[in-house]
Amino acid sequence: MVSSDPGPGGTRRVTLTEVARRAGVSRSAASFALNGRTDLRISEETAARVRLAAEELGYSPNTTAKTLRTGKSGTVALVSDFIGTTSFANAMVRGALQTLRAENTLLYTVDTQGDPEVEATLLQNLRDRDVDGFLYASMFTREVEIPPLARNTSLVLLNCVSSDVPAVIPDERSAGQTAASALLEAGHRDDIWFIGSFPPGFTGAAAWNEWSPLALTERLDGIEAALRAAGAALAGTVPIDTDWDVENGRAAVARLLTSGTRPSALICANDALAIGAYHALAEAGLKVPDDVSVIGFDGSPLIHAVLPRLTSVALPYEELGRVAARMLLEGASSSAPHRIPMPLVHGGSIAAPADRR
Amino acid sequence: MVSSDPGPGGTRRVTLTEVARRAGVSRSAASFALNGRTDLRISEETAARVRLAAEELGYSPNTTAKTLRTGKSGTVALVSDFIGTTSFANAMVRGALQTLRAENTLLYTVDTQGDPEVEATLLQNLRDRDVDGFLYASMFTREVEIPPLARNTSLVLLNCVSSDVPAVIPDERSAGQTAASALLEAGHRDDIWFIGSFPPGFTGAAAWNEWSPLALTERLDGIEAALRAAGAALAGTVPIDTDWDVENGRAAVARLLTSGTRPSALICANDALAIGAYHALAEAGLKVPDDVSVIGFDGSPLIHAVLPRLTSVALPYEELGRVAARMLLEGASSSAPHRIPMPLVHGGSIAAPADRR
Repeated sequence: MVSSDPGPGGTRRVTLTEVARRAGVSRSAASFALNGRTDLRISEETAARVRLAAEELGYSPNTTAKTLRTGKSGTVALVSDFIGTTSFANAMVRGALQTLRAENTLLYTVDTQGDPEVEATLLQNLRDRDVDGFLYASMFTREVEIPPLARNTSLVLLNCVSSDVPAVIPDERSAGQTAASALLEAGHRDDIWFIGSFPPGFTGAAAWNEWSPLALTERLDGIEAALRAAGAALAGTVPIDTDWDVENGRAAVARLLTSGTRPSALICANDALAIGAYHALAEAGLKVPDDVSVIGFDGSPLIHAVLPRLTSVALPYEELGRVAARMLLEGASSSAPHRIPMPLVHGGSIAAPADRR
Repeated sequence: MVSSDPGPGGTRRVTLTEVARRAGVSRSAASFALNGRTDLRISEETAARVRLAAEELGYSPNTTAKTLRTGKSGTVALVSDFIGTTSFANAMVRGALQTLRAENTLLYTVDTQGDPEVEATLLQNLRDRDVDGFLYASMFTREVEIPPLARNTSLVLLNCVSSDVPAVIPDERSAGQTAASALLEAGHRDDIWFIGSFPPGFTGAAAWNEWSPLALTERLDGIEAALRAAGAALAGTVPIDTDWDVENGRAAVARLLTSGTRPSALICANDALAIGAYHALAEAGLKVPDDVSVIGFDGSPLIHAVLPRLTSVALPYEELGRVAARMLLEGASSSAPHRIPMPLVHGGSIAAPADRR
């Protein structure tokens, strides 16, 4: 996986964790030993073993976390709009934390709630406090404008893009291809509908600060490309009313069924819409997957809540966090966004079309 | 609601938001005006209007965020085990942020992942950076040991308790009574089962660091007290195998049904177990709520994923965060934990017992 990759533009670095493993001590003990700290009970023999392991492996402390050498932990901040306070997306914080912790680097997380004034104040406050670098993150994959205060520091964008700044985002277009391919492989070709497009003039739900997620256009692009390559096409798209949630999904699919359409499969823009699709299908007396196949995007905890479990193309949130943190630690300079694959999580919601069994 | 209460041990303070509203400006503009900042385009006329509003309302900057008066924002840190990185529980961060933001106080969130060494390093790092106070938070309601470094600062415990330290926790015992009362009012008396007790020797799931949540004993206490007061009692409790998740709930209820028991109602220790109960009931050909009523705890996003929607006694996470932040700002000194009520969220999963309709 990517977490053990060399990372963009660098030979692979030996981590503190590897030094600790070789010396047979905890990561913290290894860090303390290398920093010459004497306030923790580490015997001179243990400290010597750690220094030897570090030498043998060619370990050197990284640049961003340079304060390591002074015996003080490096500190970076994850500045986001809402992800520290939003369910599920905060797996990105967890991923970043995993990578940073292995390098003895601390993470502060701050949420701006999408307010530029709060953001400017937070960035100034963090810089006043000698934070070494920033992960700038968004709840949605979207284009962002980098505030001037963040520009002159170590900076990696997490789940968002801006020209000329290193960025890590999910590979949404491939995800769309993955979803369509899963249905094609099960034998679906006709009557495949997409649930969750936007009505005219709609750029995003109120709860999303009206930000338009890149996910919608890129997922649709990928779906259409994969179907086209197989000589097929979407039967149509059904727009939501107000949001990508369970109730909007139920309403959209109910409208589709009421119009007399009998879909073979539904590709839903996210898991919540797909759960709503289950509800509308159940209310119409239709079974998943015997009568209609359903696939979602996100791989959220919701997929476990339905019978059969929902098949979904998962957002690799932890991996995004891990890769962005590693790029920050290694001083990434690449400006083309690094795209992380979105894996297919198999549930039981896809079967051969009813008319082909 | 509690957020407009005087707060423990104090007369109600005028907030910056109220000053801003009276002066007809944004909260940020009011803050900048009161701090004499000239780098933002605030006219002298606007600044004068803000100062007048502050005087008329008797506004004074709070003590914790004392750096406000120097034109620099106050900063507090929320130090938790996992809540910044855990779905849903991070609504506590959102609540704290809401209250702190209204007082122009910034929030750093850090997660220790339950590692005491990481915790000590983070606390030292935050204190070195002049953070004014700490919210010390836990993913589970539990007893915690306060690290020495956190003791000599402004400190409020969020979702955890420790003797002699101000704390805010959910009122779990009342929540148990609420759940039992909802069933009693629908006419249930006999054959009410509790799903989710612990097998002998089990203190908590591996994923919980084996911390035992206070929620289990307190919810059970409340349930048993309410049933006893009505002259009824639980028919029995069904232990889980390994965790409070969907699959463990399904397995526990499947075991109960296979034993030949026909429950009238199931009180599940959390929502995930209740969703699992739905699955086991469906597999046995039983309908919720016609054949069996189900109630959960947490009020998590999962309740929307099932038909009918799950009735649940909700964890008041945002409110916990708001109240804890207010106590920190106001310098709370009370040591008896402040208990926040857990509201009943009505779904469609409770009906009269099958034999009484």
